Amino acid sequence: MSASSLEIISEHACFGGVQRFYSHHSKEIGLPMRFSVFLPPQAQDGKVPALIYLAGLTCTEETFMTKGGAQRIAAEQGMILIAPDTSPRGANVPGEADGWDFGLGAGFYVDATEAAWSKHYRMYSYVLELLALVTESLPVEPSRVGITGHSMGGHGALVLALRNPGLFKSVSAFAPICAPIQCPWGVKAFTGYLGSDQATWRHYDATALMEQQATPYPNGILIDQGLSDKFLPGQLFPEAFEAACAKAQQPLELRRHAGYDHGYYFISTFVEDHLRFHHQQLNGAAR
Amino acid sequence: MSASSLEIISEHACFGGVQRFYSHHSKEIGLPMRFSVFLPPQAQDGKVPALIYLAGLTCTEETFMTKGGAQRIAAEQGMILIAPDTSPRGANVPGEADGWDFGLGAGFYVDATEAAWSKHYRMYSYVLELLALVTESLPVEPSRVGITGHSMGGHGALVLALRNPGLFKSVSAFAPICAPIQCPWGVKAFTGYLGSDQATWRHYDATALMEQQATPYPNGILIDQGLSDKFLPGQLFPEAFEAACAKAQQPLELRRHAGYDHGYYFISTFVEDHLRFHHQQLNGAAR
Repeated sequence: MSASSLEIISEHACFGGVQRFYSHHSKEIGLPMRFSVFLPPQAQDGKVPALIYLAGLTCTEETFMTKGGAQRIAAEQGMILIAPDTSPRGANVPGEADGWDFGLGAGFYVDATEAAWSKHYRMYSYVLELLALVTESLPVEPSRVGITGHSMGGHGALVLALRNPGLFKSVSAFAPICAPIQCPWGVKAFTGYLGSDQATWRHYDATALMEQQATPYPNGILIDQGLSDKFLPGQLFPEAFEAACAKAQQPLELRRHAGYDHGYYFISTFVEDHLRFHHQQLNGAAR
Repeated sequence: MSASSLEIISEHACFGGVQRFYSHHSKEIGLPMRFSVFLPPQAQDGKVPALIYLAGLTCTEETFMTKGGAQRIAAEQGMILIAPDTSPRGANVPGEADGWDFGLGAGFYVDATEAAWSKHYRMYSYVLELLALVTESLPVEPSRVGITGHSMGGHGALVLALRNPGLFKSVSAFAPICAPIQCPWGVKAFTGYLGSDQATWRHYDATALMEQQATPYPNGILIDQGLSDKFLPGQLFPEAFEAACAKAQQPLELRRHAGYDHGYYFISTFVEDHLRFHHQQLNGAAR
C-alpha cells in the first residue's frame, strides 16, 4: 500500500506536535479504516520510536487521543503514538450492532474464521498491516516500536506482542483481559468469531501464549490494574497471566492500585509511567 | 442549600485524588444541575484553592475533566477543579434544541430576561450559586478561588470575574468570546436571552465591562488564543479586549499561538500554564 492512499481527515496542533486522524483502505479489513497518530515535534527531523495503543470495547481511534493525556509526554520524549479503531465499520454483518461487547467496537484483535465474520473482522492482521503502513508512510523507526492497550486492547497488545516479539520491542497494558478463553467476554467473542474449536482460541489468549514461551520480553512487561475495577472479578484475570509469566520466567511488573476503576481517569493517571517504560526500552533497542 | 442536597452521581480515583460528578437542585435554575469536581489528595487535609472552569458551546460538566488533562497538575498543586454544565437541562423551552449555539449547551452565562427563557436560563447567577455551594460543601478555601473557561466559557469567566473581582481572585481564558455584543454568536444569544435593548447586553460583554474598570486584576489576566482557530476571525475579538485592557491599565498576557485551533488539543497543551498562573496568584491571595 502506498503512502498516497492515506487520507488526512483532520489535524490539530498539540504540545508542539500534530494530532492527526487518518482514513485509508485496509486490505485486511476490506473496508476503509480510521486511525489516529500523534507526531511529536522531533518527528520533523527524522525517524523516532512509536507506540501503538489498542483501545477497549466501544472505543474508537479517537478515545485515547482525547482522554489519555499521553501527548504531553510523547512530545517530550519524541515518540509517535498510533491508535487504530476497535473493529471494522460498515461490514454490515447481521447482528454486529446488537451488543457492546461483540461486533462493532469489539473486534477483539482476532482474525475471524466463522463465515459471517471472516471477510472483514480481521483486526489481528489489521494491526500488523497498520504497523507496516505507518512504518512506510510516517517517520516511524521500525526497530523501535512498542505496543500497549486497555482492557480488550490490553489483551490485543499482549497477544500481538507475544506472537511477534521481533516486531514489538516493548509491551505493557492497562487492565487487560488476560485470559479471554476463561472469561465471559472472551468466550462470547471467540465463539462468535472463531467457532467452537477452542484449540484455535489459544492463539489469542495471552495467558495460554505466555505458558508456551521462555522470557520473550527479558526487560519486563508492565501491567497496571485498578482494584476497584468492576470488571476485575470475572473478566480480567491478571493473576492467571502473572502465574504464566512466572512459569515462563518472564519478568512482570503487575501493579495493583487501590481505588482505581476501569476507565480513562485510571489510564490517564498511569499513562506517563507506561510511556516512560516504553521509551526506556525502545531507546535501548537496536536502531 | 445544605450539603446534604448534593448527590454523587459517580466518582473515580484519579492522580491520587478523586474525580466526582454531582447532581443538585439549583435554586437559580429551578431544575437539577450537574457539575464535576476534581478533589486533589491535599483536600483530605483541609481547605485548598479552587479553580472554576466554564466550558464552551455544546459541552457539558464532563468535557474539561475528560479532555483537559488538568487533574495531574491540580493533584500536584493541591487545587480543586470545578466545572458546571453549560445550560439548564429539562427546561423544555420551545426551540431550545434547534441550534448548537443557542439554548441547550449554550446558556452563555447570562440571566435571561426574555419571558420564554427567564425562568430557567440563569447561568450567570447559577455560577455564583455553585461557588457558594461548593464553598459550603467541599474543602474550598473561599478567599482563594479563580475562574477560567473556553470560548463561550471564556466569555463567562471574564464577565464573572470583572463583575465579581472580590469573589474571583484570578482569571484566565482559552480562546474566549471577548466581545459578544459585536459577534454573531453573542448577538444571537443576547437577542434571544436578553431582548433587543442592547444597553443590558453590556453587563455581559467582557470588553465593555473592562472599559469601565481601573486595573481590576493588577497581577494580570492570561489569555491563550490559537491562530488557526476558525472562530478567531469574526467571533472572538481578542484584540478588542486587549484594547480595553490597555485603556483600563489592566495587565494582560494575550498569547497568540501559531497553528493551534479551537479545540481541546489546544486547551490541553496550555492548561498547565493556566493552572500555574492561577496557583501562583491564589497562593499570594489573602487566606
